[in-house]
Amino acid sequence: MVVGVRAPTSQPSRPEPESQAGRPACCSLYHRAVELVGKRWTGAILSVLMDGPLRFSEIKQLVPDLSDRLLSERLKELEVEGIVERCVGEDGSSSRARYALTQKGRALEPAVRALKTWANTHL
Amino acid sequence: MVVGVRAPTSQPSRPEPESQAGRPACCSLYHRAVELVGKRWTGAILSVLMDGPLRFSEIKQLVPDLSDRLLSERLKELEVEGIVERCVGEDGSSSRARYALTQKGRALEPAVRALKTWANTHL
Repeated sequence: MVVGVRAPTSQPSRPEPESQAGRPACCSLYHRAVELVGKRWTGAILSVLMDGPLRFSEIKQLVPDLSDRLLSERLKELEVEGIVERCVGEDGSSSRARYALTQKGRALEPAVRALKTWANTHL
Repeated sequence: MVVGVRAPTSQPSRPEPESQAGRPACCSLYHRAVELVGKRWTGAILSVLMDGPLRFSEIKQLVPDLSDRLLSERLKELEVEGIVERCVGEDGSSSRARYALTQKGRALEPAVRALKTWANTHL
């Protein structure tokens, strides 16, 4: 399967400006990542998908208090970002569809793990 | 004779319930952590403080588009959580106050670093 190759974004030699404090500004890519992954419920959804694909109803069960509407919204956002993919069942019925992390999504595992470690130690 | 009085406690040795999918539910501590760190602007503020203490105006400069009001609000939230501490200048003037990560805040470094690595590779 041919996977879409994305053109590299333009940021030549010096990606971020420096401040008067003599330090680089907050990296815009990191900023985008933390706003994406940290969006309400998204981190929890990613966490339960780390162990393998799940049906919509199963994700709901594993992430308490998450509404159908918000789960649907977050899964669509993650699909658009190429972090989650929706796999329809063999019979083509959407009721058997499962949601799985893509390679890009699975690559978030070290960040999720590090945050879990911090949470278990400090919260 | 009173027989079979069961204590009302539930699942003492099992911190998180399991789903029908046979997996543990999303860890509530991790969930709290990701909602805290992922809150709009918080991840960016933590990132620029990783390199050392900064004044309010310096943080603003390093995190573009962040308003005074929101920076003030986020710093207060992080102080309440014990992640950031406010250090007043030697002369006691609040205008020289600097914000520094506590030990609990610095412990977030592996999570921030992992997310930066992911962002630089995948975004």
